[in-house]
Amino acid sequence: MLRGNQTWWFENRPVIIGAATVVGPDEGDGPLAADFDLVHPELDMQQKSWEKAERLLLEQATDFAIQNARIDKDQLQFYVGGDLMNQIISNSFAARALGVPYIGVFGACSTSMETLAIASLMVNSNSADYALAGTCSHNCTAEKQFRYPTEYGSQKPPTAQYTVTGAGAAVIAASGDGPVVECATIGKIVDLGIKDPFNMGAAMAPAAVDTIQSHFNDTGRTPKDYDLIVTGDLAGVGHPIATELLMRDGVPMDQTVFNDCGLMVYDTERQKVQAGGSGCGCSAVVTYGHLLKRIAKGELKRVLVVATGALLSPLSYQQGESIPCIAHAVAISGKE
Amino acid sequence: MLRGNQTWWFENRPVIIGAATVVGPDEGDGPLAADFDLVHPELDMQQKSWEKAERLLLEQATDFAIQNARIDKDQLQFYVGGDLMNQIISNSFAARALGVPYIGVFGACSTSMETLAIASLMVNSNSADYALAGTCSHNCTAEKQFRYPTEYGSQKPPTAQYTVTGAGAAVIAASGDGPVVECATIGKIVDLGIKDPFNMGAAMAPAAVDTIQSHFNDTGRTPKDYDLIVTGDLAGVGHPIATELLMRDGVPMDQTVFNDCGLMVYDTERQKVQAGGSGCGCSAVVTYGHLLKRIAKGELKRVLVVATGALLSPLSYQQGESIPCIAHAVAISGKE
Repeated sequence: MLRGNQTWWFENRPVIIGAATVVGPDEGDGPLAADFDLVHPELDMQQKSWEKAERLLLEQATDFAIQNARIDKDQLQFYVGGDLMNQIISNSFAARALGVPYIGVFGACSTSMETLAIASLMVNSNSADYALAGTCSHNCTAEKQFRYPTEYGSQKPPTAQYTVTGAGAAVIAASGDGPVVECATIGKIVDLGIKDPFNMGAAMAPAAVDTIQSHFNDTGRTPKDYDLIVTGDLAGVGHPIATELLMRDGVPMDQTVFNDCGLMVYDTERQKVQAGGSGCGCSAVVTYGHLLKRIAKGELKRVLVVATGALLSPLSYQQGESIPCIAHAVAISGKE
Repeated sequence: MLRGNQTWWFENRPVIIGAATVVGPDEGDGPLAADFDLVHPELDMQQKSWEKAERLLLEQATDFAIQNARIDKDQLQFYVGGDLMNQIISNSFAARALGVPYIGVFGACSTSMETLAIASLMVNSNSADYALAGTCSHNCTAEKQFRYPTEYGSQKPPTAQYTVTGAGAAVIAASGDGPVVECATIGKIVDLGIKDPFNMGAAMAPAAVDTIQSHFNDTGRTPKDYDLIVTGDLAGVGHPIATELLMRDGVPMDQTVFNDCGLMVYDTERQKVQAGGSGCGCSAVVTYGHLLKRIAKGELKRVLVVATGALLSPLSYQQGESIPCIAHAVAISGKE
């Protein structure tokens, strides 16, 4: 099943039979608003803490994904989930609510495609008939944990990114109707020494490039094989860096084909989101909300989602460490 | 490949071709000292921070495991790792040093068997020829992050456990010499409402019981099929609770067959470790150090390691949440 060094080829063609996305007010004010299953009008979602709000997002997204997949919860065999919170606590609580065997993972913002890759591996290898992948982030929990509580009103440089408030989940099945998960390229850590948690797009760009190159090497594909290649959350600073690095490596990317979920989820001109979106929820809601709908409509035949992750901890950057980065890529195509 | 609902059956019989363990002074003073590859005489391992010491443990264990497996680092295709630190940072740094595609996971102290299960799934499904699984914990990083810095010298109740300073890693291969990973039972979250982070053994015991029961249901096996069944880190309070719960459920466990890594790693009478050991490193060093050697000697034919995890975050218990717990079980047998 392995093709190349770091790409899993899913020859049994696991299918995304249902997916769902739940977002907050800023995402509901953005250009993709119509693609989300539920938009919360308030950031607190009537919960007593930001953490409880984040958990609610994920619990709703996983429930809706199961409903959209038209299966019973009992049929679900595994849940693969992760998030940005310390000890991925939002997912532990969501897994408790689901009551199914649970694989917790962490890949920072690359978690969206890490969970989809592992769930697809399970289904492809007949280790599960139905597996759920999910992730989430909340602007106020992430800012509080990684930088400063939003209540402080601290200023941010324009290189900073705005954590998406949103959750996305998808049910992967051995058969059924829906887009096919073709293959997944698991990323290596790339760390060029950047230490600034307010410039994660630049830190993550080389990891995205490394995974994209590996994907093409492993699969023999080229950018022409995709209608759209999106990075996870490189945003306004990191995405042009990735484009330039790919160009230098002899892989010119047509800018109509190469985009970034952090640039797509907001109107970066109008909305006050600094360089653009970030967070586990960013690539999750763009992929499971927007991209899958475009695939279903036939507007896109095949996409590559390259979810990027900055694997820093608040402690590691306080101790002067640089930011290890990673990117995991998953190729999704419409059913022929 | 799925047998029952939550057990992966590895019919291609992936093999642990090499493993290694590196521990700190307390573990080196315990009854299993002779089984570890390296014992550090000092807790700080001449590093400038506890976090750097933990990272060193893991980097040494992964390097030694590759050496013991007699493969080149280049042959290694994936590293699956996780730890207790926020954003599993020790593993991100170890993965950076390894330079191989990396799957980060989190299952608290169940991470030892979660990583072994996923690495075995990859190899069994021909998604990798060689995959490395690893985890680590350090007494001073865990106490600092989850409770109080050890430098405070705060007192602990006798129900508390002592986080193992140690790292364990294993190379799983499609073929070769060594014990076989037969199957893995992935656990569900079990949360009976315990909120005390100084009594995690009691919190985790029902999760261990749930996974053991599911393992027997899924595989048709009974306790008689194993020479040894060990829980991860239930220790002196949790392990008797698990025994009693199993007895009530009609699964009496012979106490010569049912043990706990947290009780095995220390001399709980002589060493000041409260109820016993805990931490990702606990079941990892006991399994990869002690149990694999006993299997190699033929003293044990088949063991079931039921690694337990308390998926709390410091924030979640400060906010009054109960502790979601989980256990993942892996069956390992000597080659016939």
